Amino acid sequence: MELKLAFAGFGNVARSFSRILCEHRSQLATQFGLRWRTTAIATANHGCVLSGGDIDLEEAATCVSGGYSLLGLWRTFDATNTFHLTDNCDADILFETTPLNPINGEPAISIIRRALSRGINVITANKGPLAFGYHEMKALAIHRGVSFRFEGTVMDGTPVFNLAEYCLPAATVTGFYGVLNSTTNFILTGLETGRSFDECLLEARKSGIVEADPEHDIDGWDATVKAVSLANVLMGTDARPRDVERRGIRNLSAEEVRGAAEEGLAIRLVARAEIASGKLMIRVGPERLPRESLLGAIRGTSNVLVLQTDLMGELAVVEYDPGIEQTAYALLADLIRVHEDMLRGRRRGSSRAG
Amino acid sequence: MELKLAFAGFGNVARSFSRILCEHRSQLATQFGLRWRTTAIATANHGCVLSGGDIDLEEAATCVSGGYSLLGLWRTFDATNTFHLTDNCDADILFETTPLNPINGEPAISIIRRALSRGINVITANKGPLAFGYHEMKALAIHRGVSFRFEGTVMDGTPVFNLAEYCLPAATVTGFYGVLNSTTNFILTGLETGRSFDECLLEARKSGIVEADPEHDIDGWDATVKAVSLANVLMGTDARPRDVERRGIRNLSAEEVRGAAEEGLAIRLVARAEIASGKLMIRVGPERLPRESLLGAIRGTSNVLVLQTDLMGELAVVEYDPGIEQTAYALLADLIRVHEDMLRGRRRGSSRAG
Repeated sequence: MELKLAFAGFGNVARSFSRILCEHRSQLATQFGLRWRTTAIATANHGCVLSGGDIDLEEAATCVSGGYSLLGLWRTFDATNTFHLTDNCDADILFETTPLNPINGEPAISIIRRALSRGINVITANKGPLAFGYHEMKALAIHRGVSFRFEGTVMDGTPVFNLAEYCLPAATVTGFYGVLNSTTNFILTGLETGRSFDECLLEARKSGIVEADPEHDIDGWDATVKAVSLANVLMGTDARPRDVERRGIRNLSAEEVRGAAEEGLAIRLVARAEIASGKLMIRVGPERLPRESLLGAIRGTSNVLVLQTDLMGELAVVEYDPGIEQTAYALLADLIRVHEDMLRGRRRGSSRAG
Repeated sequence: MELKLAFAGFGNVARSFSRILCEHRSQLATQFGLRWRTTAIATANHGCVLSGGDIDLEEAATCVSGGYSLLGLWRTFDATNTFHLTDNCDADILFETTPLNPINGEPAISIIRRALSRGINVITANKGPLAFGYHEMKALAIHRGVSFRFEGTVMDGTPVFNLAEYCLPAATVTGFYGVLNSTTNFILTGLETGRSFDECLLEARKSGIVEADPEHDIDGWDATVKAVSLANVLMGTDARPRDVERRGIRNLSAEEVRGAAEEGLAIRLVARAEIASGKLMIRVGPERLPRESLLGAIRGTSNVLVLQTDLMGELAVVEYDPGIEQTAYALLADLIRVHEDMLRGRRRGSSRAG
């Protein structure tokens, strides 16, 4: 079996993943019997191309990285747009990495819906579909007997959804809390060292961790969409970002952060989900925590997620200074899992059996 | 299929696991199709009994917890000792939870060898076999087409080996470091608050976290055996505890710990493995770390393990205040995994494919 891969979105994450795929081609074949070729690539600004399977993924990545269009790439023909490509590609797996839309999750949801409906496995790094349409996507995948996977959506490549599914069987996630947004954590820990909000934001922008719209991070939307994604998948709720009690860090002053530090406290943007009076509450907002606590010790762009479970108590996963390579690795981990499920014929519709 | 379970060792961990098994009998059947009965239990001081499969596990646990012998339990016959039981039981899976022997891993290694040789899957919570005979056990399991699993050996129920196997595919663990021993961490964080070494040790003893021989913890042997287990499984080495550069916390004074705390430093017993000049070095010893670092923030009986990988960068798992229930959960997670592998007919010989 040679897997036919299609890409909807071909930005930094997808191209970084492409590099890993090309560099590890022989390891994947030897270790997992995983062989692949590329049949379709859709970009927003560099064209959309289809092929019988002869797309040179390395060449395509170099082309887009250099600012050139994919149109006219060897042995390809053009697609009108991402929808047209999704409807017409000959693919086993679609990698959906279009930009997040924090208002309604589109067009990612429509792309994924079309792909799953055609019986194509979907791997996404986009949390929009989890926050706005997880249960629909999951049901559709189950109905069509394909996989829908999304490890890279919340903590880049750090195992979260796969951890819960494969390493915590029979256990129930009863709640969680964590620091899930890199930009705000970078700013908050920068303020602790005496820099100004604007200096910290500028530095975050330079480092490339800021979303296209930094307001999205600063007002807590990114953490909110992540928290909703976690709750929907791990706790089975069907929440939306609007259900979250959300506060960002916009109104925090540098003086307040430094004053807290002098008292031995760290201010962190914390996302929490807990069941109170039988109802799931999701909150995102700045909290004052001991600097020597686990969340207080999470500095810079690092993230932490603490899972509360019935059978296994509390456990945490920490990701150090994540980059695009980690998100790209999540796509690889999901690819290996989908391939195994296909080999097994045990196609599952979702990452979380729950 | 109804799994026939045998127990070699029936102490606190095995009995706690027995309670989970009994309490979740219907969930296991419904969610995983996992049905079980008990065919053999070997204890050190309360007799060894065999049966065609009619042992009442709950009754047996109550009996041993109450200090009574298992001999004469309804519909059982006696075995001479654990070896005799292992050689004669009718079992699909043996749970090996005999006490750790930090000198050579016996008799656990012999028990496991006998079980695997007979084609019985083995799940252990005992790190001795990993530190003194991992590659032999692994090869034997592969040869006999059965599973050898051990999630509970190093960080109780927190996913470590299963995390690496199922959630970090294609990635290579290039090193690790962490706080792996609860007793010493409890003492070190107690000293920070002004208590004496002996007070802290007494309190640790009362809480039940101390090994039978506290010297074993204090001199760093427990952390050493854990580090060797991790290195052997995750990094493919064939190290022994004697290969470790080991220092315990015996010679640390309360003044030194408090002095460090005043400077903003925490002293932690850290286990490290790294490749230096092409050779794997494993070290265990007290280190002075910032109190606000991840390892410095690990207090009391909590543990942390940081994995360094090629494709996924650094990630950490943290276990909060582990108890016997967490180790018991690891046995359950391994049981579910072995059952799935049996169903799949894809019997594997080891937890780590690498």
